[in-house]
Amino acid sequence: MGNGIRTGVLGSNGKVGKAIIEGVEAASDAEFTVGVDKGDSLQDFVDSQTSVVVDFTHPDAVMDNLKFLIDNGIHAVVGTTGFTQERLDTVVEWLGDDPRSGVLIAPNFAIGAVLSMRFAQQAARFFDSVEVVELHHPFKADAPSGTAGRTAQLIAAARAEAGLGASPDATSTGLEGARGADVDGVRVHSIRLAGLVAHQEVLFGTQGETLTIRHDSIDRNSFVPGVLLGVREIGSRPGLTVGLEHLMDL
Amino acid sequence: MGNGIRTGVLGSNGKVGKAIIEGVEAASDAEFTVGVDKGDSLQDFVDSQTSVVVDFTHPDAVMDNLKFLIDNGIHAVVGTTGFTQERLDTVVEWLGDDPRSGVLIAPNFAIGAVLSMRFAQQAARFFDSVEVVELHHPFKADAPSGTAGRTAQLIAAARAEAGLGASPDATSTGLEGARGADVDGVRVHSIRLAGLVAHQEVLFGTQGETLTIRHDSIDRNSFVPGVLLGVREIGSRPGLTVGLEHLMDL
Amino acid sequence: MGNGIRTGVLGSNGKVGKAIIEGVEAASDAEFTVGVDKGDSLQDFVDSQTSVVVDFTHPDAVMDNLKFLIDNGIHAVVGTTGFTQERLDTVVEWLGDDPRSGVLIAPNFAIGAVLSMRFAQQAARFFDSVEVVELHHPFKADAPSGTAGRTAQLIAAARAEAGLGASPDATSTGLEGARGADVDGVRVHSIRLAGLVAHQEVLFGTQGETLTIRHDSIDRNSFVPGVLLGVREIGSRPGLTVGLEHLMDL
Amino acid sequence: MGNGIRTGVLGSNGKVGKAIIEGVEAASDAEFTVGVDKGDSLQDFVDSQTSVVVDFTHPDAVMDNLKFLIDNGIHAVVGTTGFTQERLDTVVEWLGDDPRSGVLIAPNFAIGAVLSMRFAQQAARFFDSVEVVELHHPFKADAPSGTAGRTAQLIAAARAEAGLGASPDATSTGLEGARGADVDGVRVHSIRLAGLVAHQEVLFGTQGETLTIRHDSIDRNSFVPGVLLGVREIGSRPGLTVGLEHLMDL
Repeated sequence: MGNGIRTGVLGSNGKVGKAIIEGVEAASDAEFTVGVDKGDSLQDFVDSQTSVVVDFTHPDAVMDNLKFLIDNGIHAVVGTTGFTQERLDTVVEWLGDDPRSGVLIAPNFAIGAVLSMRFAQQAARFFDSVEVVELHHPFKADAPSGTAGRTAQLIAAARAEAGLGASPDATSTGLEGARGADVDGVRVHSIRLAGLVAHQEVLFGTQGETLTIRHDSIDRNSFVPGVLLGVREIGSRPGLTVGLEHLMDL
Repeated sequence: MGNGIRTGVLGSNGKVGKAIIEGVEAASDAEFTVGVDKGDSLQDFVDSQTSVVVDFTHPDAVMDNLKFLIDNGIHAVVGTTGFTQERLDTVVEWLGDDPRSGVLIAPNFAIGAVLSMRFAQQAARFFDSVEVVELHHPFKADAPSGTAGRTAQLIAAARAEAGLGASPDATSTGLEGARGADVDGVRVHSIRLAGLVAHQEVLFGTQGETLTIRHDSIDRNSFVPGVLLGVREIGSRPGLTVGLEHLMDL
Repeated sequence: MGNGIRTGVLGSNGKVGKAIIEGVEAASDAEFTVGVDKGDSLQDFVDSQTSVVVDFTHPDAVMDNLKFLIDNGIHAVVGTTGFTQERLDTVVEWLGDDPRSGVLIAPNFAIGAVLSMRFAQQAARFFDSVEVVELHHPFKADAPSGTAGRTAQLIAAARAEAGLGASPDATSTGLEGARGADVDGVRVHSIRLAGLVAHQEVLFGTQGETLTIRHDSIDRNSFVPGVLLGVREIGSRPGLTVGLEHLMDL
Repeated sequence: MGNGIRTGVLGSNGKVGKAIIEGVEAASDAEFTVGVDKGDSLQDFVDSQTSVVVDFTHPDAVMDNLKFLIDNGIHAVVGTTGFTQERLDTVVEWLGDDPRSGVLIAPNFAIGAVLSMRFAQQAARFFDSVEVVELHHPFKADAPSGTAGRTAQLIAAARAEAGLGASPDATSTGLEGARGADVDGVRVHSIRLAGLVAHQEVLFGTQGETLTIRHDSIDRNSFVPGVLLGVREIGSRPGLTVGLEHLMDL
């Protein structure tokens, strides 16, 4: 047995699962043990002395997976969606105060996206003006993106807490839609363009200077470094952690 | 007498006039002769053997100025606004087929803005997608900016001529305004931010690649190099020229 | 038989060949006829009444391919490398003044890259300053990239023709390398970063304004739209054309 | 007497001093009391019941100014340069444990620059690759800029602490200088361009994604909001504080 963190993967036959296995195998401090997909037994993780399991599966399957992993003292890094407050409460209950298992559930494993949001939140109270621009491929159904909406909400909350009012805006005439969508008072613009994948800019401005935080994701595998960060850190964080940022000591 | 183009300035006491005089004096191939403002006589240009006069004055004054300059065989470079088709026709009539005088009238002397529009027009037919983003200080009254509106119209016309349909866009749900304003089928987004002056991006995209043309104007004197270009070129272009781009051999 | 341009592909089993076939099949005005790879006969193109053949093969094979295509009155769109002046002369000789065949040979089929270079060349004489920044993945062996080097040379030539001297630069103290590489007097900077593919910015500046032309290529298939452009245009351009820009009426 | 923080200005006749007075007068929570320049008496600050004095003067004058302010229980916000460790030690000694006076000394009051550096430091350990690009007007004597050098050092230190090695770079052939300057293992590129003022980009990259932190300062008065932040916060921070970031609760 090697010295890396013994890491297994759920949903190992899918595209995402395969990218995670590749990432684990390429990491110097982790070791791939076993992949489990439909038809395989979760018991394989126990038999292979797996320490952390990564679950990017389906809302229908993830709760049963977590029950098994917690019962067997195995940590979990979860990118599966569909976690309601009720589901989170159930996971907390299962974990109890057993110091053996840690569970990380995160909606976004792209480190750059998580940092973007955090920095936007930190910067918000220092600038008179702020707007958010998100740019995506033209096949996206929603505008603005979920990440842009959340970013705008975090910024709006930070501004409100600091006692800042609306960004200055003297627009008095114009075309409908030119000034973007209004999310809690923060303007959000959605660009759709062939040749793009997923990109976001937060622009802050005050007298004579601007600060721009830009995140570009050009590869559907950009979640892999965030998953590996979770694998490395979850062993020292018993209980439930929601959101990758809490493992990042920002 | 030096060897530079003998250049006079109308509206020489204003901010704009002073910036132009400074520009002329700094240019190695032009020579400042005389400035004329309210109360001064246009005859000063004749007496000083001025070859080109720059007019950034007022719609109320500019036609009288042009009549005098044309009658005296002096070239004019004009940034004054308010030229209707009727006024342009009158200028053409005054010029007649006299090869002595050239008149340049341009709505925009920022070379970067003129090139941006021209390149956008040239690129338009080669890309599936295009959007325009303009970014200005928060004291601007109109959204989108006139330049962004014109740019979008030029792009739309070039796409139509090439037989291109609408840019692809699968947006089916979203917030009002997120996708910007619609100018002849081209989406235009207006950002207003403290710390900005006047900026514009045209984004083109096709399979796997994007092309972005960005113009940043951070100084109200950014029209000076374009005025000097006009001063240099108008002597060899008798008749009326509308738009700086026609002197640029693009 | 459909109505699209009957298009065949050489090197049809490779990654590039497959991407081209996909592109042809997706285009509304082209029709895929047949792919030829090692072991197949070039005669297949004749038998399938192919009008244009795309050749992204190997310097060892391309000359024989071209001889056959020209002899059979089939147009060629060629991305294969290794064309010396001698080889180009041979192709011209084979083409003779036969109006039946057109051959396009291009080093770069990314439309955005071709336009970037063309616009940079056009803009060069209007700005005091210019620098080139190219950004690539960290596995690239050469710095600067070939495209950045060529872009800088084109800019330098356009500046020289317009009588412009060096860009202003008061740097008197500093660290070695900070100001980039010198290509014919134009500064070129090479950034290498995980998460990038192939990107380039040309920055022009004059008093109070800057113009930036940026090209982002994030997909190895970004040559496909340029190949399709070649397929559409080569039928009306008998003889040899070197460089995609000559089919673009810029 | 109003309710704002009673704020005086040293060096009040200079450009910088005037910009600060304007900023104080425009702020809703500060009130300008008196300006002191050569020939005026520091006693004016005491007589006007000034609470905070802003000092952007000269290394020759600043120590005498601080002695007076500390002796009279007045807070100081200092942008004057030339503080050696010895000078800082002297200021600490003068302050003693008197809870009346707080002194802020900062090399950079541009909030966006301070945040850029802080975010760069926080992000450093999460990315495989990092490079710094700074862009300035062509009259700048040093390359790279002091801010870029310090940013690179902070990033290098954060990477070292996290056990990260060098950013990946396969460059094996190229032109001298293309890959920029080496600051503690971080590549720094300096662009000099007419039409720019002071700009900086920090680019981070990992698998499939990049994060860019960009700061644009286009106005020499961009230090004003940072000075006002210092004025607001220094009253509750007795003793010496070096660096604006320590008042920002990041």
